[in-house]
Amino acid sequence: MERDISALALDKMHRKTKPPGSLGILEVLAVRLANLQQTLEPKLSKKRICVYAATHGVTAEGVSAYPSEVTGQMVLNYLSGGAAINVLARHGGMDVCVIDTGVAAEWPEALLCQPNFYFRSIRPGTSNFFREPAMSSVELSRALEIGREQVRVALDHGVDLLGVGEMGIGNTTAASALLVALCGLKPEEAVGRGTGIGDATLRRKIEVVAGAFERYFPLACEPSGLYWLQVVGGFEIAAITGTILEAATARLPIVVDGFIATAAAAAAFNIDPGSREVCFFSHRSDERAHRKVLEILGVEPLLDLRMRLGEGTGAALAMPILEAAAKILCEMATFESAGVSGSLDARE
Amino acid sequence: MERDISALALDKMHRKTKPPGSLGILEVLAVRLANLQQTLEPKLSKKRICVYAATHGVTAEGVSAYPSEVTGQMVLNYLSGGAAINVLARHGGMDVCVIDTGVAAEWPEALLCQPNFYFRSIRPGTSNFFREPAMSSVELSRALEIGREQVRVALDHGVDLLGVGEMGIGNTTAASALLVALCGLKPEEAVGRGTGIGDATLRRKIEVVAGAFERYFPLACEPSGLYWLQVVGGFEIAAITGTILEAATARLPIVVDGFIATAAAAAAFNIDPGSREVCFFSHRSDERAHRKVLEILGVEPLLDLRMRLGEGTGAALAMPILEAAAKILCEMATFESAGVSGSLDARE
Repeated sequence: MERDISALALDKMHRKTKPPGSLGILEVLAVRLANLQQTLEPKLSKKRICVYAATHGVTAEGVSAYPSEVTGQMVLNYLSGGAAINVLARHGGMDVCVIDTGVAAEWPEALLCQPNFYFRSIRPGTSNFFREPAMSSVELSRALEIGREQVRVALDHGVDLLGVGEMGIGNTTAASALLVALCGLKPEEAVGRGTGIGDATLRRKIEVVAGAFERYFPLACEPSGLYWLQVVGGFEIAAITGTILEAATARLPIVVDGFIATAAAAAAFNIDPGSREVCFFSHRSDERAHRKVLEILGVEPLLDLRMRLGEGTGAALAMPILEAAAKILCEMATFESAGVSGSLDARE
Repeated sequence: MERDISALALDKMHRKTKPPGSLGILEVLAVRLANLQQTLEPKLSKKRICVYAATHGVTAEGVSAYPSEVTGQMVLNYLSGGAAINVLARHGGMDVCVIDTGVAAEWPEALLCQPNFYFRSIRPGTSNFFREPAMSSVELSRALEIGREQVRVALDHGVDLLGVGEMGIGNTTAASALLVALCGLKPEEAVGRGTGIGDATLRRKIEVVAGAFERYFPLACEPSGLYWLQVVGGFEIAAITGTILEAATARLPIVVDGFIATAAAAAAFNIDPGSREVCFFSHRSDERAHRKVLEILGVEPLLDLRMRLGEGTGAALAMPILEAAAKILCEMATFESAGVSGSLDARE
């Protein structure tokens, strides 16, 4: 049975050779990690990024700056180590797993044997949610399970910090639609420029999101994360939701990447409010709606570097900060052990 | 002779497999680093933090929450590896050099032989600048030279990224006075709670800063960084200014820590405006005036983690982000090399 050891961890933090609170958010992170791991010596020794990929039927509506086949091409790029997430993960000491949750691409045999590639394709892309539900309820269950599986795999591999990212041309459209439904954003607030669309495409993207909301809202019994994932989500988005839900059970800290991963987290929080506890938000994306969504969710991201790439790149940059926080609690000397005088106020 | 290779570096960045600009500030950092190193393959392989320490005479005015002897005690803590900066530097792969620029402490013989300790004491602490100038002009020259020396040492050791931090009980008072003089802040804006002073000490600290400005302003010919460093600065602050000035000559990238290091940078920018080019501001400190000072200097920090410890801790957390930026430019695949389709807009 878990108990809340936050107060013990904070007390330990305050005996370190620094003014109380002077390490700011690092101190907050360290206490959260201690509580999740149920130890005053939290350790994040093995770190992993899961990149979930999927093709999106909604790209047929002309909502993206890039052709849909880029999704498959980028999966190959991840598996040959040349993408931004590969560079940043190598730099930060994380391994990268790539999960095909439903990409419209043919993979060479050799790829299917690559140990960090998980071929879990549900089908080669969601349906166009502007015209029909993105997936069936059975497919949604499979997508969630694909995400849950990665938590079990990670735990088997000794991973103690898991970042979640994604690739899917068209998926900012799905994420925006989800956030209209789950966070109450207006379509024109929720939709941004994604990979860099022009004004005409932006107008179309808003129409598509607004149209989808109008289509599916009357059928919704209540604002339900599961329902909205099914009708406007993506296989990779639902998989990330599954990862967060399973991580909550396992108390595995999850680093949420950017805009799309945040939409998946919003769905997870709707399904299981307790899943908030394991989520650390890596960065504020440059995608327009992200700032507001983070505010609505009541979470504060660690970084704000105006990134908007996805893939887990924000998570990869933020994970070393969490690791640093844990090390502060484990490794720093105390006033007593270092023979340093305390505050004059404390003496009074 | 150096030439500006920013356009070449940006062109290289835009051929990488990601939407142009989608790595935000990382792309800006990579271009700056390429230009400083005059190569399209910038590398930050050896990183170091210099912690400059000094005792401050102004502590006699009762402006700090901690007794002045903590400065020397913390130097011992840095040299035995137990302080926050040691933990964070180990984590980020930096070494730590500690420079005594004028600490009121007796060092054991063994310490003086420690290779990362530089005993360069000018005298055991500045004078109380509320009563008389903090140092003489000869002492100022020595302090600047101590800082310049560390750039030469770093280059000799193959260091290609240098962070500058400090320790000196009382030095937020000196930094605030400098910023009143150099950035036009009002004393009540420039003074904050430092290590965590109460209201009465805060009022006293504002009086001291205001009084010092009134004392020395009529004697100033113009707002001169050198003059104000001498009358209200600290040995460690002036040393950081010296490091930045020398780094500008050597084109060595410098990561500026927090509030006090920023005051030293403000003095450097006043003395040599070209020194801006080598400075990267690591974080926005929780010390009240820092936000405004960064705005006045027209610089944007990389992190905002509500830290206010100094020692170079913000620099240590930010340096891996610069390293990541350099690696993006060196290691990422291009659209062509990875066989990834470009933007639909670009095809039109």
